Amino acid sequence: MAAVEIERLIRLLARLPGLGPRSARRAALAMLKRPEVLLQPLVETLAACAEHVRRCSRCRNLDVRDPCGVCSDAERDPKILFVVEDVEDLWAMERAGSFRGVYFVLGGTLSALDRVGPDELGVGALLARVAEGGVEEVILGLGATVEGQTTAHYLAERLKPLGCRITRLAQGVPVGGELEYLDEGTLEAALRARQPIV
Amino acid sequence: MAAVEIERLIRLLARLPGLGPRSARRAALAMLKRPEVLLQPLVETLAACAEHVRRCSRCRNLDVRDPCGVCSDAERDPKILFVVEDVEDLWAMERAGSFRGVYFVLGGTLSALDRVGPDELGVGALLARVAEGGVEEVILGLGATVEGQTTAHYLAERLKPLGCRITRLAQGVPVGGELEYLDEGTLEAALRARQPIV
Repeated sequence: MAAVEIERLIRLLARLPGLGPRSARRAALAMLKRPEVLLQPLVETLAACAEHVRRCSRCRNLDVRDPCGVCSDAERDPKILFVVEDVEDLWAMERAGSFRGVYFVLGGTLSALDRVGPDELGVGALLARVAEGGVEEVILGLGATVEGQTTAHYLAERLKPLGCRITRLAQGVPVGGELEYLDEGTLEAALRARQPIV
Repeated sequence: MAAVEIERLIRLLARLPGLGPRSARRAALAMLKRPEVLLQPLVETLAACAEHVRRCSRCRNLDVRDPCGVCSDAERDPKILFVVEDVEDLWAMERAGSFRGVYFVLGGTLSALDRVGPDELGVGALLARVAEGGVEEVILGLGATVEGQTTAHYLAERLKPLGCRITRLAQGVPVGGELEYLDEGTLEAALRARQPIV
């Protein structure tokens, strides 16, 4: 069989999302067969990430700087705070490129089952940040899932006394979506929120 | 957007088989979010692999020892040499656990299109190893693909003058296979190689 080191590498890779034991083995072999092209650059890049990447102390984004690139960008508007579930959501918004405010990363959603309460999500830090003043609008950009919406409602309740505007993302037909393939919930939400064309 | 280091990590991960840009991003985030559990152990394990894993000088398997664990196992029979296309095939045979001889890893198949000739596959090293003497049987365990079988025929021609027995793996119905779902080529091969039950 393979050496202990290789087995350990396969086991670690198999813990990544989207990789199972078989694909982890393929990935490990691809690295080992091309040490100059894949293995060595990966060692260096991972080591650099392990050393430098930190959570931003303001928004909890992942970056090599603290405050992160978004928080320290003077062009962005700190009066609009976009609350996301996780870093991937922040990155997705940044790829879309249309939001010019700042973020706060919750790190998940409330879940009694998984014992994720307000403390685990840093709700205190979010409230403190808004209480500081300077934030005029909080956009609750959580997923349109049961957990996401429960968390959004909870946050809205807690944020209300602080006097800022609280909004959420629109629900409706996704761009490119065909009605035939959409679920009833989406169709109902889109109908309810229908808008005049002219 | 994400830091340069993180972007580089995602780009490198996306070059692994089975991972695209999206899954590479998910994998990178999974590592970065759990530095103690995933990122740090991966850095260490990859560095250990980069430092210690080498091609075995006898069979071209990947291992931290040279000769590799298989070649240096005194329990194994060096008179039976199993020729495989690649390291993953060697590992698959070892997982099956029924072969107790030794291996030679070609590193691919002959391919005029990809400019893979006998020199790229180390055919010279294979012939030299058999010419040394001590090998009584060469099993050509190449894939049942056009490239695999072309390569097997070429190797058989080159090995014939050396006087050892040359065999190949049986073709037929895979264990658990249902005739209904098998292709015509497999059914034809299984019929041609049919065997008496008693």
